[in-house]
Amino acid sequence: MKLEFILQPIHSELSLLRQSLKEIAQVDFPELARLLDYALGNAGKGIRPALTLLCGKFHRHDLDLLLPAATAVELLHIASLIHDDTVDKAHLRRGLPTLNQLWGDDIAMLAGDWLFAKSAELATSTGVLEVVRLFSETLMAISQGELEETWQAFNARQSRQDYFRRVGNKTASLFALATQTGGILSESPPEVIQAFRDYGYKLGIAFQIVDDVLDFTADEQGLGKPVGKDLPQGIPTLPVILFLEQAPEDNPVRSYLERRGGEEELKQALALLRSSPAIEKAHRIAQDFSREACQAIEFLPPVPAKKALLELADYVVERRK
Amino acid sequence: MKLEFILQPIHSELSLLRQSLKEIAQVDFPELARLLDYALGNAGKGIRPALTLLCGKFHRHDLDLLLPAATAVELLHIASLIHDDTVDKAHLRRGLPTLNQLWGDDIAMLAGDWLFAKSAELATSTGVLEVVRLFSETLMAISQGELEETWQAFNARQSRQDYFRRVGNKTASLFALATQTGGILSESPPEVIQAFRDYGYKLGIAFQIVDDVLDFTADEQGLGKPVGKDLPQGIPTLPVILFLEQAPEDNPVRSYLERRGGEEELKQALALLRSSPAIEKAHRIAQDFSREACQAIEFLPPVPAKKALLELADYVVERRK
Repeated sequence: MKLEFILQPIHSELSLLRQSLKEIAQVDFPELARLLDYALGNAGKGIRPALTLLCGKFHRHDLDLLLPAATAVELLHIASLIHDDTVDKAHLRRGLPTLNQLWGDDIAMLAGDWLFAKSAELATSTGVLEVVRLFSETLMAISQGELEETWQAFNARQSRQDYFRRVGNKTASLFALATQTGGILSESPPEVIQAFRDYGYKLGIAFQIVDDVLDFTADEQGLGKPVGKDLPQGIPTLPVILFLEQAPEDNPVRSYLERRGGEEELKQALALLRSSPAIEKAHRIAQDFSREACQAIEFLPPVPAKKALLELADYVVERRK
Repeated sequence: MKLEFILQPIHSELSLLRQSLKEIAQVDFPELARLLDYALGNAGKGIRPALTLLCGKFHRHDLDLLLPAATAVELLHIASLIHDDTVDKAHLRRGLPTLNQLWGDDIAMLAGDWLFAKSAELATSTGVLEVVRLFSETLMAISQGELEETWQAFNARQSRQDYFRRVGNKTASLFALATQTGGILSESPPEVIQAFRDYGYKLGIAFQIVDDVLDFTADEQGLGKPVGKDLPQGIPTLPVILFLEQAPEDNPVRSYLERRGGEEELKQALALLRSSPAIEKAHRIAQDFSREACQAIEFLPPVPAKKALLELADYVVERRK
C-alpha cells in the first residue's frame, strides 16, 4: 500500500506541515536560509510527524497545538539525521547530497544545533511542559544511542539485547515521542497515551530493523542512499547478530569485524550475509514488533486514524525504501 | 580582584553546582560517564551560572529552582564550547586537551548534543515555560552566531555592527540568558528582569571583546589555550576591525585575510596588530560596555549580590585569562 493513501486522513495537515517547514527556512540570514531551504525542502517520508497528527485525532483535536508539535518532531528528526550523516561521513541522503557533503562538517554540525534549538522552541510553543520534557529526553536518548553505536563499532560480541537497547535509543525513542506527543496534546486518557507510546516504540524498532535489512538487500538507486554501509562502519545490526549467533567461531563476518578487514574480506562477508537466513529471520522479527505495535492500540475506536496507524505498521515492514 | 572573593556571596551555592555537575556525569553507560566526568569536572570560571545565582538573590530566593537553572546554563555553555572546539579543531581548553582531541570529532559532537539535551531537561525541571523558551532561543542564537563566524571567515569587509551582532548571538545571548533566568525564577518585577537582561548582554559583549583582545596579548600558558588563533581562522575580531578602519587599503592584515596568506604573512600581520593602538581601543570599548552593564542595574538595592555583579563587570574587563 502506498504511503500517501495510508496518510489520506491527514492529507491537509501534512500540507500545512510542509508549509510550516518552508516558513522556518525563511530566516533573516541569507546563507542559513539557503541551507535550511535545502535541508527542510527535501522532505522525507514524514512518517514521524504523521504519527503525531494521527495520534492527535482520537480525542480533543487542536491543530494549533498538534501542528507545531509535529513540525518539532520532524525538525528533531532532520537535525539528528544531519549529525548522524556528519558522524558517518555520508554523501547521500534521500537521493541527494548530504549537508556535510555540500557545506562541510562544521556547518552541518552547527546547522543541526540550530534545528535542535528550533525544534525545542516549537515544542515549547505548545505550552505543555510534559511535551518539552519528552523532547529533551528524546534528544538525550538519540545521542546516547548514536554514541553507543560509535563506541561499540567493530565489537562482534554484541547481543540482541545490546541491539534492541541501542536502536531503542537511536530510533524508537523518536517514534514514541511522536505518538505520545499526539496523545498528550489531544488530552487523551493516560492508558491511551501509554498505548500510543508502546505502539510508537515498537513501530520504531520494526522500522530500524527493516532499515538494517534494506542495507543488505536494497539497491542504492531505489533506497536513495548507499547500501552495504553498516558493516564497513563496524555496526553489528540485527542480521549480523543473528548470523553470528548461528555461525561457527571462525567465519568471515566475525573475522571482518574483529580484524577490521579490507575490501576483499568485506565483499566476502557481505555475500555470506546476503545469502544467509539471518536476513529473513531479522525481517520476521520486525514483523513481530509491527504486530505488537498494532496490538497495543487494538482497543481504540475504529476511526480512520486508527486504520491509518495499523496500515502504517504494515507499510513499515513491507517498504522497499 | 580575585574571582573567588567576588563570588563569596554564593560560595555555598557554587559548591552545590559543582556537586550537581558531578552527579550528571554519573550515567549508566561507562564510556559516556568517563567522558562527562572529564568534560564537567574540568570546570571553567563558572561566571555564567554565577550570574544566574546572583540575579536570583534579589527577590524570592528558591534554590530548588535556581540551582538546576544555573546548572543548565553551565551545561549549555560547556556543550557549545565542545561544538565550538570541534569546529575550530582546537586542541587545548583550560590548559587541558579538548574532547575532540581526546575522543575525536564524532564523539565530541554527539556528547555536545547529549549535553544540550540535558541542559534543556534541567531547564524544563524548573517548570517555567518562559525559561525553557529562553534556553531554546539562546541555543538558536549561539549556533547562528557560530554559523555567521564560519561563513564570514576571511571576509575583511566586516564592520563593527557585524561584529557586535555576531558576538551578541555567539556570546552575549548566553550571559543574558543566565541573568534573566535568575530574575525570572526569583519572581523579580519586569523592570528588574529587563535590567538583568541588559546587564548580562552588555557584560557578555565586554567579555567577548576581552577574549578577542587576549587572543592577541596573552601567552598560551597563562590563558590555558592557544593564542593568536583568531586571525589564522580568518575571524576579524574587534581589534582587527578597528585596525582596518584606520589602516590604508594596502596593508598586511587586510591582505592576509583577503589572500589567506601563509605563515610569514600571518606573523607580520600579528606583529602589526599587537603593536597597534587598535588593541587598547578595543579594550576601552569593552570597558564602556562593562560600565553600561553596571548602569543597567544601578537602581537595585545595595545587597551583597549587587556588589558582586558590579565587581564582576570590573573583573571581566581586567582579567588576564
